[in-house]
Amino acid sequence: MSEPVSFREYQQHIIDRVAQRLKESVPAHWQVPSTLREAMLYSLMAGGKRMRPLLVMAACEALEGNAEAALDAACAVEMVHTYSLIHDDLPAMDNDDYRRGKLTNHKVFGEAAAILAGDALLTHAFYLVAQLNRTHGVPADRVVNITMDLSELSGPRGMVGGQAADMEGEQGLTELAQLEYIHLHKTADLIAFSLLAGGRIAGANELQLDALRVFGQKLGLAFQIQDDILDLVGDETKLGKKTQSDIKQEKVTYPYFIGLEASKREVRRLTDEAKAAVAEAGFSNPTRLLEIADFLMNRDH
Amino acid sequence: MSEPVSFREYQQHIIDRVAQRLKESVPAHWQVPSTLREAMLYSLMAGGKRMRPLLVMAACEALEGNAEAALDAACAVEMVHTYSLIHDDLPAMDNDDYRRGKLTNHKVFGEAAAILAGDALLTHAFYLVAQLNRTHGVPADRVVNITMDLSELSGPRGMVGGQAADMEGEQGLTELAQLEYIHLHKTADLIAFSLLAGGRIAGANELQLDALRVFGQKLGLAFQIQDDILDLVGDETKLGKKTQSDIKQEKVTYPYFIGLEASKREVRRLTDEAKAAVAEAGFSNPTRLLEIADFLMNRDH
Repeated sequence: MSEPVSFREYQQHIIDRVAQRLKESVPAHWQVPSTLREAMLYSLMAGGKRMRPLLVMAACEALEGNAEAALDAACAVEMVHTYSLIHDDLPAMDNDDYRRGKLTNHKVFGEAAAILAGDALLTHAFYLVAQLNRTHGVPADRVVNITMDLSELSGPRGMVGGQAADMEGEQGLTELAQLEYIHLHKTADLIAFSLLAGGRIAGANELQLDALRVFGQKLGLAFQIQDDILDLVGDETKLGKKTQSDIKQEKVTYPYFIGLEASKREVRRLTDEAKAAVAEAGFSNPTRLLEIADFLMNRDH
Repeated sequence: MSEPVSFREYQQHIIDRVAQRLKESVPAHWQVPSTLREAMLYSLMAGGKRMRPLLVMAACEALEGNAEAALDAACAVEMVHTYSLIHDDLPAMDNDDYRRGKLTNHKVFGEAAAILAGDALLTHAFYLVAQLNRTHGVPADRVVNITMDLSELSGPRGMVGGQAADMEGEQGLTELAQLEYIHLHKTADLIAFSLLAGGRIAGANELQLDALRVFGQKLGLAFQIQDDILDLVGDETKLGKKTQSDIKQEKVTYPYFIGLEASKREVRRLTDEAKAAVAEAGFSNPTRLLEIADFLMNRDH
């Protein structure tokens, strides 16, 4: 197809490509127990904004890197994100029956299968990263660095650490710093990884990688504060879910700590700083990255 | 220390080194929630035969490779093995309260923490593999291949696939081929990985890697059949657990399908074939590998 023009078209184009690639992501000739394969695909294909894949693609495009390779990395991130949702929804964790209007994985396949589907998705994400070298010719040292980033940013001091802190914190957070730790690791780390992966595939230099990391962390934190704000004052129809769930669940949020107006200012400040970091790092084509930042700040769902 | 002589000394030496390295495996300066770190280490340090680490070390030694690098890979395998045990023990899976005479992870830390500790161990295993390049100078292309092996052999068509087939099969297996699929993937695949990882670190050629893969698959299958046999006719004192649990749980086993004597012959045949594969592949120092094969065949617990 010809290059899409508007941001909305660009976004939809990538959502479609990611969905197609995810469908084929577990090789058809692999002998995988049918329930396991089905459970993995059920949650992978459940839709969503595909924000992390979008960021991988845009970061790679900022340096005019190999989009086919970035697409596989985008699928890897989406697998890690999806596994985390499947495990978070389990009865022992958040005990959710629905996600994005569909039954959660364990409600359809049972708890044991859901645990294993999550484990399989996490493991397979590393397979997709590792084969970037063989399939797309991404140099081995870059693939090693992407593997290191993924394991660090989604592991015990990354996403899983954030999730563990969130579980511990349900007894009650008393400081904004604790909430920031949770947001930074549970959400922002995987977003930062998405940007680094796209950048590394495209051969970003250290300065550019630093800018992408900062962009990801600030954007990830802004994203989560925006979530808190929308839960408080958003439109239920647009959000597709009930608002004020945080208050009902007695969850502390940014608005709880610093108020609604200061939270909105914080989203704007973080977004501006994220954009500035990228604008100054000498990317040949940063347009989509900057558009994503604005899109996320202005979203109403 | 000077080079250990007897196989028993060799084994104990490696058990000690692995325990020491595992203790330091999550960097002390990483900001990890304390319960998560504690839950990870609780199961990592619970002991066991460390058979997989032993195989990584012996495979590397067969080509006189870098033992320090192999030790990190050995820790990575032990993390994957440990995560699989934590998740297998969960109430939704096998619902076990004890393992190796200690309370299982979820009995000590709760189900949510146990799920996350497993997730964190699996993720961190890939970190240990990725940093083989930076820390020990293992060439990046070898590190990529080790990552690919690990994700394939512990993922949906490897260990997790075997576990999923085992869960599905609890409704009753009717064919030996199904049981073989489970044993091969649930057990043998990670054993094969251990050998491949040690070999790759030491720069094994394709012929040698094939031999290590065959050695691992045959040894892994023999190991599992031996487990079935010991459950039937073993000494409870030596095993440290009740025998005949398979019969009580109505689990089908190799002796169930082909009888006790034929099962014993199968263990011998597989072990002989495993040893032959390694003996013919031109390793400069295969002694420990061959000793491990004999040790596993002759074990009584």
